[in-house]
Amino acid sequence: MDFEALFETQLDALRQEGNYRRFANLERQCGRFPRARNHDDDAPAEVTVWCSNDYLGMGQHPVVTERMKEVIDSCGAGAGGTRNISGTNAHHVALERELADLHGKEGALLFTSGYVSNWAALSTLGGRLSDAVILSDELNHASMIEGIRHSRAKKVIWKHNDPEDLDAKLSALPANAPKIVAFESVYSMDGDICPMEEIVEVAEKHGAMTYLDEVHAVGLYGPRGGGVSEERGLAHRITLIEGTLGKAYGVVGGYITGSAALCDFVRSFASGFIFTTALPPAVAAAAQASIAYLKESDAERQAQRQNVARLRAGLDRAGIPHLPNPSHIIPVMIKDPVKCRMIADILMRDYGIYVQPINYPTVPKGTERLRFTPSPWHTDADIDHLINALTVLWKQCAIAHEVA
Amino acid sequence: MDFEALFETQLDALRQEGNYRRFANLERQCGRFPRARNHDDDAPAEVTVWCSNDYLGMGQHPVVTERMKEVIDSCGAGAGGTRNISGTNAHHVALERELADLHGKEGALLFTSGYVSNWAALSTLGGRLSDAVILSDELNHASMIEGIRHSRAKKVIWKHNDPEDLDAKLSALPANAPKIVAFESVYSMDGDICPMEEIVEVAEKHGAMTYLDEVHAVGLYGPRGGGVSEERGLAHRITLIEGTLGKAYGVVGGYITGSAALCDFVRSFASGFIFTTALPPAVAAAAQASIAYLKESDAERQAQRQNVARLRAGLDRAGIPHLPNPSHIIPVMIKDPVKCRMIADILMRDYGIYVQPINYPTVPKGTERLRFTPSPWHTDADIDHLINALTVLWKQCAIAHEVA
Ligand SMILES: Cc1ncc(COP(=O)(O)O)c(C=O)c1O
Ligand SMILES: Cc1ncc(COP(=O)(O)O)c(C=O)c1O
Repeated sequence: MDFEALFETQLDALRQEGNYRRFANLERQCGRFPRARNHDDDAPAEVTVWCSNDYLGMGQHPVVTERMKEVIDSCGAGAGGTRNISGTNAHHVALERELADLHGKEGALLFTSGYVSNWAALSTLGGRLSDAVILSDELNHASMIEGIRHSRAKKVIWKHNDPEDLDAKLSALPANAPKIVAFESVYSMDGDICPMEEIVEVAEKHGAMTYLDEVHAVGLYGPRGGGVSEERGLAHRITLIEGTLGKAYGVVGGYITGSAALCDFVRSFASGFIFTTALPPAVAAAAQASIAYLKESDAERQAQRQNVARLRAGLDRAGIPHLPNPSHIIPVMIKDPVKCRMIADILMRDYGIYVQPINYPTVPKGTERLRFTPSPWHTDADIDHLINALTVLWKQCAIAHEVA
Repeated sequence: MDFEALFETQLDALRQEGNYRRFANLERQCGRFPRARNHDDDAPAEVTVWCSNDYLGMGQHPVVTERMKEVIDSCGAGAGGTRNISGTNAHHVALERELADLHGKEGALLFTSGYVSNWAALSTLGGRLSDAVILSDELNHASMIEGIRHSRAKKVIWKHNDPEDLDAKLSALPANAPKIVAFESVYSMDGDICPMEEIVEVAEKHGAMTYLDEVHAVGLYGPRGGGVSEERGLAHRITLIEGTLGKAYGVVGGYITGSAALCDFVRSFASGFIFTTALPPAVAAAAQASIAYLKESDAERQAQRQNVARLRAGLDRAGIPHLPNPSHIIPVMIKDPVKCRMIADILMRDYGIYVQPINYPTVPKGTERLRFTPSPWHTDADIDHLINALTVLWKQCAIAHEVA
């Protein structure tokens, strides 16, 4: 069997449709975010990152980095085992307490990533509650989709952010089946935010559990960074809140929070929780420091919002269309994978601006985009430079369009 | 729907059969491995860890910890994005090169854990190669089982470590179906090692791909720590070698190595690789330092082997039965979850010896065990103390047995 040929055939198909991915090889510069050293040949040695999910630059905050180094000194590098077999460390336990408090829940459970937390929690809930039905927003993240798929529970997809459709779909199900409504607060590719109260009300009406992914909201929304559910005073009405430690908190890892019994259930039965080495104690401690800091400090969120507003206003003035939304994510639609890659390449090469072209499978084919995430640390000059570069490119594209 | 009651019912069942898990709450002491601070009430404040998978204590090696801190200083805490969207760092790229070299392969691909590498690689290979059949050793790890399940490929289970059975099962399959033979080198719960050459020969005869999990062998076997496949000179005949950075290398993370096309294929299509924040650059750099160190230094492996031999000899002298095997893992079978937990509790409370009782679902019910992993850093006194404690307990158990 010529496996190499099988691989190459599928890779060639990707290349032909323009969806083959090249990763930018960067080196983050602690203390100089959003600047990064570029290790690729055909671009400046230093670039400005415009697409990081270290939304607030907490990955370089001394509160985080110093704590991480401190716990490397005290505990070493790794955890040394799965949570059950010698891998549980006092720093994991403390982080779980911090997370439970963040969302006002009894319990929390830590995973190696947000992906694994969604995959493991949904596959365990859907797989172990007999006759469970999972009602999934049609734009849910891959990690939720894979978890639902893995659970082999019945899956019903409802229209994106549409509580009425959810209501109709819930009504069609048997009253005595356990129902799980899975959705996100901030959808990361369009930057839209769900009508959370309406969704919660519909779920409550049908006695369904609510499963909320706040991955792109924790740290960023709510007075203590508890996410959109905190901002809107709805956290206590959500059964399970899931989040990441790898985006606004600037480290890595994922978690769920909920009732003590819920967390204990997932802890006891989820393969993806049980059979894997625990996160390094220093990672847990650094994440905890980040969460605790953002519970108190609002300055980073404020500064981020100002920069988001400034970039939006600049794009508007320049006539560059971007998706309107109430979040910190600014998508500029290109709708073609080849063009999207070309624009990103020019931005990188000629302007030292790094924004990754977002293509399939991250977004549906035909909705390729550039996705800008202004941080508190982008300067006014950075924003102006980006708007100028895009303005030049937009004119060139328009000209090219007329000629063609 | 009373979800709490549903959770509690299943948790109660676990409690009743003695399989409910309590995690020891420890705090590793960098520089004092295998000593750890104990945060639970009913045991000494300091304990000796006898069940760590930080097999060589590399988690506290200055080469690893200093490198990790250095890269926190230069790059910050987290990666800030998925590998595709701003998350690829020069340290990931360098680590992947190191891993490819370790196993003599063209390429390598990094994942957030060994669990995710198995799950993502097998589900992608099994899912995207049409009509693929995965032939899985019956004792394969949960991460492989879940990956195979997720792929929805046809699965054939062959008898543990039995090349003849594998041969028969392969012979029964259509000649033109892509076949993947998935197995481990060191099986972590029994400590036995597979007949690798025979398995490879059978696979080659049938034109099957070989998928080898070396999670409990990398760093420990082979002159450069390349695992059992290196020790036996078979790495070049294995299609894909998978490993972890969280056990002998002392950090966290997982990987696959193989041909450039194979790695590119998984990179391009595996959901569990694509849709998740990359490992922190500092974690990648620390792991690379650990691998590079163990490519050169054999002292840790030698010292570990001496301690393994010493503990085995002591158990033999004391008449305490343990599973014979050619690896570094010493299982003492108890075959009852309640008794297993009781012995572990007494060891912890009265002797400051921490060995986690291993129960279902990690091992089949009725095969509960204590699993000892001597490191280079256990002293002769530690070993003698353990043997004495077990001797006392074995006598008490024998007495209890006569009385009952
Ligand atoms: C909505 C959503 N959920 C979960 C995840 C996974 O989180 P993590 O990066 O921590 O694995 C992501 C992105 O990575 C995401 O966008
Ligand atoms: C055989 C085997 N493969 C894979 C894994 C998963 O590796 P990791 O701990 O890096 O997730 C483990 C244990 O954790 C294992 O025992």
